[in-house]
Amino acid sequence: MSQPPATDDRHLKMRLRLKAGTGLLVMGPGRLEILRRIDANGSIAAAAREMGMSYRRAWTLVDATNRCFRQPLVESVAGGRRGGGARLTATGRQVLTTFDALNAKAAAAVTEERTLLEELLADPLPEPKDSGKT
Amino acid sequence: MSQPPATDDRHLKMRLRLKAGTGLLVMGPGRLEILRRIDANGSIAAAAREMGMSYRRAWTLVDATNRCFRQPLVESVAGGRRGGGARLTATGRQVLTTFDALNAKAAAAVTEERTLLEELLADPLPEPKDSGKT
Repeated sequence: MSQPPATDDRHLKMRLRLKAGTGLLVMGPGRLEILRRIDANGSIAAAAREMGMSYRRAWTLVDATNRCFRQPLVESVAGGRRGGGARLTATGRQVLTTFDALNAKAAAAVTEERTLLEELLADPLPEPKDSGKT
Repeated sequence: MSQPPATDDRHLKMRLRLKAGTGLLVMGPGRLEILRRIDANGSIAAAAREMGMSYRRAWTLVDATNRCFRQPLVESVAGGRRGGGARLTATGRQVLTTFDALNAKAAAAVTEERTLLEELLADPLPEPKDSGKT
């Protein structure tokens, strides 16, 4: 409580996506999060619930991500909670670990520029709106 | 023509956004591109046209970006083509230069991880779909 909460609000966070040359989205923050939550929960349904997302939306996201790679990242498991669960494959774990490392390295490389941009931010910042992804 | 076109399609490109802690989008690929095109063209209308975007959409994007910073990034200029144009302010130029540097440093920091993920990609890749930004 030694700092007003507004301070953290003004930190810039990096959100990183990887796209193929065709425009195909391969990895991004939402895909990373669902992989991590499937890994923690052993279930797409539980991951979806935690992310406030429908099962259908989560399944579609996992399916779209699976199709981007040679081997699927998530596979179903017979039995378990809710009559079957899901887990990361070896490829899934490798993609999760690699994209985590990529995010960490990118963030570490740009601290100087990030700080400079933070110093130029409006005070107070405007309210966030749903302004699209551009 | 010594390589089939598919090769370039499989290169992963990084798309980087900066968000404030409140969720406010501050900078991203579309915002960077419109700033660059306004700088090149001296006009929001010309920048919008080049990006296949309506003037209204471009203006809203510029306005939303301006509001994120202490000083506007784009200002209008009296006279000139189409009865007035637009140009980057000193802050606008600083943000453009800094975000360019940030993108370059981030990309350079992650070549190892990017290459590793490229090696795991499906061959052929699925067709890109409008699968949202996650």
